[in-house]
Amino acid sequence: MPPTITAFANAPDRGRGLARDMGVRWALEEVGQPYDVRLLSFSEMKQASHRALHPFGQIPTYEDGGVVLFESGAIVLHIAERHAGLLPDEPEGRARAIAWMFAALSSLEPPVLDLTIAVIVERNEAWYEQRLPRVKDRIRERLRDLSVRLGNADWLDGAFSAGDLMMITVLRRLKASGLLDEYPNLPAYVARGEARPAFRRAFDAQLAVFAAASRN
Amino acid sequence: MPPTITAFANAPDRGRGLARDMGVRWALEEVGQPYDVRLLSFSEMKQASHRALHPFGQIPTYEDGGVVLFESGAIVLHIAERHAGLLPDEPEGRARAIAWMFAALSSLEPPVLDLTIAVIVERNEAWYEQRLPRVKDRIRERLRDLSVRLGNADWLDGAFSAGDLMMITVLRRLKASGLLDEYPNLPAYVARGEARPAFRRAFDAQLAVFAAASRN
Repeated sequence: MPPTITAFANAPDRGRGLARDMGVRWALEEVGQPYDVRLLSFSEMKQASHRALHPFGQIPTYEDGGVVLFESGAIVLHIAERHAGLLPDEPEGRARAIAWMFAALSSLEPPVLDLTIAVIVERNEAWYEQRLPRVKDRIRERLRDLSVRLGNADWLDGAFSAGDLMMITVLRRLKASGLLDEYPNLPAYVARGEARPAFRRAFDAQLAVFAAASRN
Repeated sequence: MPPTITAFANAPDRGRGLARDMGVRWALEEVGQPYDVRLLSFSEMKQASHRALHPFGQIPTYEDGGVVLFESGAIVLHIAERHAGLLPDEPEGRARAIAWMFAALSSLEPPVLDLTIAVIVERNEAWYEQRLPRVKDRIRERLRDLSVRLGNADWLDGAFSAGDLMMITVLRRLKASGLLDEYPNLPAYVARGEARPAFRRAFDAQLAVFAAASRN
């Protein structure tokens, strides 16, 4: 039995691959692990049967025999620990790749999420335009440092790793904002990730879910 | 040579143990690993020599022989993987404990951080009082789910783990807000963490830094 993940039956991003199943799908494709997907409506996500798997009633989850996990970062790490291809064998490089995973989720994603929430929830407030530049500046602070560290390298620390996978997954959420384009090596970095065959297969799989839902 | 971590020479929390070295100190104390601390001023944190260790110019970092790490989550995981006491031996429980570490940093901390930033940066804005309830409601949504999952248990998943350590480290930042008290099992959970001798040693060590700095 392949592992089963959960994903949105109707992704709010309309198939742009910005939901949190995307990183998990990408990791599974990178290591060549087939998987099943169970699609959930928004109301199903909040039911007790799903909350038993995910205490916050969200996607994705990961079930593989006796292993039941939530949090995309934890799921990607679990996959990376059990298959070759996403973490260096050498212990110091492995620890650094994991540090970049945490950096993506703890240092980059919070200000990115803040912008997403502001755009959705605060757009019609009188103070939206006043607050927005500060939200964007907090993102720029991180992007500038990330851009400096990446420099002319293809990936953050040697070969492509789960750290790059998580970082690119987070950075893709900024595309519509135009902020990435202020640091030219960052859109190029994201494009290198998106050009990987495993990314493409993962992207197409989630897009197919959206396309099928749109036909119904 | 024991590992060396970095911490604020002048912590902005005035010794309340809310800076990000706290979780790392606590983990080191739980496993009985002595450590050295290099204190950094705010300007030293932004210098090239420190950015070589931490691309975002922050604390903590962790140096142990050839291993150089940043991100408190990654450092705590690294410590937990190399010493007994913070992760179950059994693989499924180990993966779940790591999932709780990611949950603390990815699902709980972003709204908590949003409140911290609002209180510091937006307090004097005309719309501060209007926006605040929404920020708090996003935290409440997570606290309610966490409270339900914890129930009457002492810890999130069996014995105390690195997942509890990270979660309690994040929840402590909410003490001043009063939000924790709306979910009575959560302050009790935090108090259980704070009652651990390893927590107390870590707390006292960071408080001693603040006390010494205050005397100068």
